Amino acid sequence: MASTVEGGDTALLPEFPRGPLDAYRARASFSWKELALFTEGEGMLRFKKTIFSALENDPLFARSPGADLSLEKYRELNFLRCKRIFEYDFLSVEDMFKSPLKVPALIQCLGMYDSSLAAKYLLHSLVFGSAVYSSGSERHLTYIQKIFRMEIFGCFALTELSHGSNTKAIRTTAHYDPATEEFIIHSPDFEAAKFWVGNMGKTATHAVVFAKLCVPGDQCHGLHPFIVQIRDPKTLLPMPGVMVGDIGKKLGQNGLDNGFAMFHKVRVPRQSLLNRMGDVTPEGTYVSPFKDVRQRFGASLGSLSSGRVSIVSLAILNLKLAVAIALRFSATRRQFGPTEEEEIPVLEYPMQQWRLLPYLAAVYALDHFSKSLFLDLVELQRGLASGDRSARQAELGREIHALASASKPLASWTTQQGIQECREACGGHGYLAMNRLGVLRDDNDPNCTYEGDNNILLQQTSNYLLGLLAHQVHDGACFRSPLKSVDFLDAYPGILDQKFEVSSVADCLDSAVALAAYKWLVCYLLRETYQKLNQEKRSGSSDFEARNKCQVSHGRPLALAFVELTVVQRFHEHVHQPSVPPSLRAVLGRLSALYALWSLSRHAALLYRGYFSGEQAGEVLESAVLALCSQLKDDAVALVDVIAPPDFVLDSPIGRADGELYKNLWGAVLQESKVLERASWWPEFSVNKPVIGSLKSKL
Amino acid sequence: MASTVEGGDTALLPEFPRGPLDAYRARASFSWKELALFTEGEGMLRFKKTIFSALENDPLFARSPGADLSLEKYRELNFLRCKRIFEYDFLSVEDMFKSPLKVPALIQCLGMYDSSLAAKYLLHSLVFGSAVYSSGSERHLTYIQKIFRMEIFGCFALTELSHGSNTKAIRTTAHYDPATEEFIIHSPDFEAAKFWVGNMGKTATHAVVFAKLCVPGDQCHGLHPFIVQIRDPKTLLPMPGVMVGDIGKKLGQNGLDNGFAMFHKVRVPRQSLLNRMGDVTPEGTYVSPFKDVRQRFGASLGSLSSGRVSIVSLAILNLKLAVAIALRFSATRRQFGPTEEEEIPVLEYPMQQWRLLPYLAAVYALDHFSKSLFLDLVELQRGLASGDRSARQAELGREIHALASASKPLASWTTQQGIQECREACGGHGYLAMNRLGVLRDDNDPNCTYEGDNNILLQQTSNYLLGLLAHQVHDGACFRSPLKSVDFLDAYPGILDQKFEVSSVADCLDSAVALAAYKWLVCYLLRETYQKLNQEKRSGSSDFEARNKCQVSHGRPLALAFVELTVVQRFHEHVHQPSVPPSLRAVLGRLSALYALWSLSRHAALLYRGYFSGEQAGEVLESAVLALCSQLKDDAVALVDVIAPPDFVLDSPIGRADGELYKNLWGAVLQESKVLERASWWPEFSVNKPVIGSLKSKL
Repeated sequence: MASTVEGGDTALLPEFPRGPLDAYRARASFSWKELALFTEGEGMLRFKKTIFSALENDPLFARSPGADLSLEKYRELNFLRCKRIFEYDFLSVEDMFKSPLKVPALIQCLGMYDSSLAAKYLLHSLVFGSAVYSSGSERHLTYIQKIFRMEIFGCFALTELSHGSNTKAIRTTAHYDPATEEFIIHSPDFEAAKFWVGNMGKTATHAVVFAKLCVPGDQCHGLHPFIVQIRDPKTLLPMPGVMVGDIGKKLGQNGLDNGFAMFHKVRVPRQSLLNRMGDVTPEGTYVSPFKDVRQRFGASLGSLSSGRVSIVSLAILNLKLAVAIALRFSATRRQFGPTEEEEIPVLEYPMQQWRLLPYLAAVYALDHFSKSLFLDLVELQRGLASGDRSARQAELGREIHALASASKPLASWTTQQGIQECREACGGHGYLAMNRLGVLRDDNDPNCTYEGDNNILLQQTSNYLLGLLAHQVHDGACFRSPLKSVDFLDAYPGILDQKFEVSSVADCLDSAVALAAYKWLVCYLLRETYQKLNQEKRSGSSDFEARNKCQVSHGRPLALAFVELTVVQRFHEHVHQPSVPPSLRAVLGRLSALYALWSLSRHAALLYRGYFSGEQAGEVLESAVLALCSQLKDDAVALVDVIAPPDFVLDSPIGRADGELYKNLWGAVLQESKVLERASWWPEFSVNKPVIGSLKSKL
Repeated sequence: MASTVEGGDTALLPEFPRGPLDAYRARASFSWKELALFTEGEGMLRFKKTIFSALENDPLFARSPGADLSLEKYRELNFLRCKRIFEYDFLSVEDMFKSPLKVPALIQCLGMYDSSLAAKYLLHSLVFGSAVYSSGSERHLTYIQKIFRMEIFGCFALTELSHGSNTKAIRTTAHYDPATEEFIIHSPDFEAAKFWVGNMGKTATHAVVFAKLCVPGDQCHGLHPFIVQIRDPKTLLPMPGVMVGDIGKKLGQNGLDNGFAMFHKVRVPRQSLLNRMGDVTPEGTYVSPFKDVRQRFGASLGSLSSGRVSIVSLAILNLKLAVAIALRFSATRRQFGPTEEEEIPVLEYPMQQWRLLPYLAAVYALDHFSKSLFLDLVELQRGLASGDRSARQAELGREIHALASASKPLASWTTQQGIQECREACGGHGYLAMNRLGVLRDDNDPNCTYEGDNNILLQQTSNYLLGLLAHQVHDGACFRSPLKSVDFLDAYPGILDQKFEVSSVADCLDSAVALAAYKWLVCYLLRETYQKLNQEKRSGSSDFEARNKCQVSHGRPLALAFVELTVVQRFHEHVHQPSVPPSLRAVLGRLSALYALWSLSRHAALLYRGYFSGEQAGEVLESAVLALCSQLKDDAVALVDVIAPPDFVLDSPIGRADGELYKNLWGAVLQESKVLERASWWPEFSVNKPVIGSLKSKL
């Protein structure tokens, strides 16, 4: 298969232009085309190429070098592009079901072009759309059609000005009035204004609004989602009683209009309640298929996971772009050398390799994990859709929730740190806006925050693991989960007796070494967290206090180590499967080992609490990371060629595939607006001279 | 003195408005006014207040909420403000000599208002000004007057498109023509264009241009600075042969116009050479007071240090602002609580304390260090000015160079990480542009890059230490330096035998514990680096290769540990001196211990290679950091009150001194432009509906 495509269809994977990157490309230990086919498959490569080519050939998506877009203009352009995506209809709903991985692929392609576009499209079609689909019932299907025809435009309104993480404290109310069979949506004050809602600022006509549902003469029933019309689709003017506006400029993603809304006794029909989890009869009686609030909450975990899994993918696309830019730059930027005459590419320096190559490895490992977790989620959602209420289905929901809640922080933080490193590794040129590293950093930043603050999300994962341990201690239950991510914990007393036995760097260059260490680490942190929690409780702390006191040194590293182990495990298995072409095994094995050991090395101090001992262990780990970096540096450019989108999409003069760093940069600088022109305000220097100290008397 | 000011002059340190921050202010263990007076002194407080009040009362400095400034408009505004600073003349040249600390204080005040303003002013007056002053001779004094009267506007042009760090490879040439007694400044091609030069984009009339000096029939004499007119002050149009322009938008500091210039055989008079380090006779003979290039380079270290020391101060001002915003937010934002009814400020969570309070401690420790290093530099410069050529003066230059080259990376990275943590710790509201954390991050970023990439600078410091050790090994020399930062190394074999003996958290809550550990760490890393370097050389590596191979795991941590130790040592001595008012000793001691232990904890894995052993050491260190955070959380708001500028300067709705988080934020959102207005492009949604899939056939 590979050979057909390589031979017969050069259009799918065309050769790169010749230039300064040739030297590295020639030294690569593998064929980038073969790796691209192995990683993505021909169908997916074709799908991505279709999208990228459509954008490149459509003037609406033309890049405008040097343009100083106003906020309003950028939002208009982003809306027009979003509309155009509907005209292209790259992925029909049927295709989504047939090839689910095309959903994150589409989002990655749009996000590589511009995060604001991916966000706008995703929030309307998938977040708003699935909220209606998965929380509503048959009576709401009409909205789904309107969403995909863009007759309405949607947003998802949960967060309020004064409450985000603590959703239980959300204060918008929905009182049912049986006389008119309506709910009255109301914001008690501005602190309860819905806030930060993507698409709400200027575009949305409808919102899924979360409000406390109350029926007459009865207590309130907690948060429920309502579909509320906030603007008239014919005019985009607000509906009566709705004060809706734009929250203003953000650090990034400024093509997206985040907004706020306050509701002044806005009446909506009873049918506006998205009633999958609970409903109100015309007379005003609350009914729910779930026994209690806790069970109802459990059933909604799936949709929470779905947002988090998407964010993993959004984060990684940013890291792909950043790493591609920084590594192509590093392979062509020369500075210093063994003699004064000869300068070498900065990629030849062990320091530069150590700064960048682990993030390249992280891209490969996390991207694989992201896809595999997405497929797990699809399995979960198919179960939900088919009404599967088995214990396994419930367990699967909990496991995916635990993995998603920790992998979203891992991916968003790895990307945040990786982009920063890439920015700095490109020196001043990394600080020039046109080279795009700043935009990537700014656009990635909300991934650390929305759908749950990273640090708070990690508690979900540590709580999951602590719950399993408690179950084992009290009921003698085995550690078993549908995706097997916790099964190794069954052997945990034995694992804790293990020690790091590797004494040479050569023995360390395999992800299996890191896997063993990670297993010890997770077992150790799980035991310590459990003991510390119980000790806090015994000494009089409430549950709330005890958990808070255990988070920094225990729960947080536990959750991170657990998800890192899972990422490493899955990538290790992936690169060691028999179907890996022999010519790719070496490079994939190194990527796997590098990501694993580099991640592990950040826990070295913890490993010294029982797994490591002596000077050598830490040294071996450090040296192994450096050795792998050195082994991978000649493959770096080819590995980037696999993950980088076309130049038009990458949009960074220092990161272009031809490697003509300075020609591209210089050309782009000269194309900017008014580069060589005198400033319009020149007389302020030349004519209106200051009188030094003339205002001193005013001080 | 303190009592007089507190009683008699409430205008200097006025009370804060009452509000939600009162509870924390009431719980503080000390008087913020007393600490402000102790830290700054009355004269400095008055100086800063004068500057802040002038800016607040001058409409040219009015904040414009919601304004979407174009690049050109922002640059105009920043230029006008810079000019206005000359009209205020806050600090005369005589005052600079009398009270040198007012120089960084002025820069901090301007930078707190806007980094672009500080940069523009600093680059013209101090960087360009001191380059002319310290590299030129009497014949250039006329320029100094013109600089301070703003008759000319200056920039400092060293970096080229293809060369920054490796200054020896700079390719602009200056050939001397005895026939006309002129130098011919020439850029061989666009890769040698001067690039990134601040103020060059639109404003500068003159540049200090570094070029390779060549005289006829002789070899070239390396880089020399020339003062070159690039624009006509009467018109701001470029001089003949000079192609000068703006490099475009950057990640931050966009009020500053960074530019490029290419010189096409531009003739300048012989006197344009800034001839302190070397000169050319009218006939074309090169003469220099220095024996060789190396010695000439050594003599220029002082001016390199000066830029780096300034950057330490620029970085810290950003961290001060970020920490102030995030801690006031954390003291007023409530989320979750022990019961569903009661929510507590997020500052009460150990996680939030651990995320933010170490950076608060870092501000105090680094700010003190920054001032003390600035005073050391003043001593050095006074020696240079008075012609001191003693061995001590040379040693002082080397020691300051080593400290500046590592403290610039330490301060800029600590700030980079600190601002990011503050941004995330404020959740979504930290991502809103008006709250300023994004601007601070973007404006701080170049501090990691200019005046030397952080990772490259650290080599200067490790080389300094390795040089001292080699001197000791080969010549039996003692470790002695004028500022005594290396003197402890004399005891280094003994220090390496020491072990961590502290077994309880209570015994650990003092910076002395960290100091002892840091001394071991520096000795350990120095020995290891030295051995590794020699081992690499013995196994055939060239000097160049050997140093590159030793940097990641050895030289880099060595330089960082050494400078951290120096920062900790100086702050430790400062807070334990007898003149500290008794009421401030507890809080200052905790700040010192927290910064020291928190910094140290990042080296825990290295400490386990010989100083730490067993599970307990690492646990005690972690627990001590958390204990200090907990002890400091009630003092956090008062500590912020000492370092935060007035609200007008801080310019962050969520960080205002009244603590009215939501009222301020909501008010600011509603004041933005067209918040509630319908988008101008509404018909693009309401009228021009997309036909779904209409472009599919084009794919």
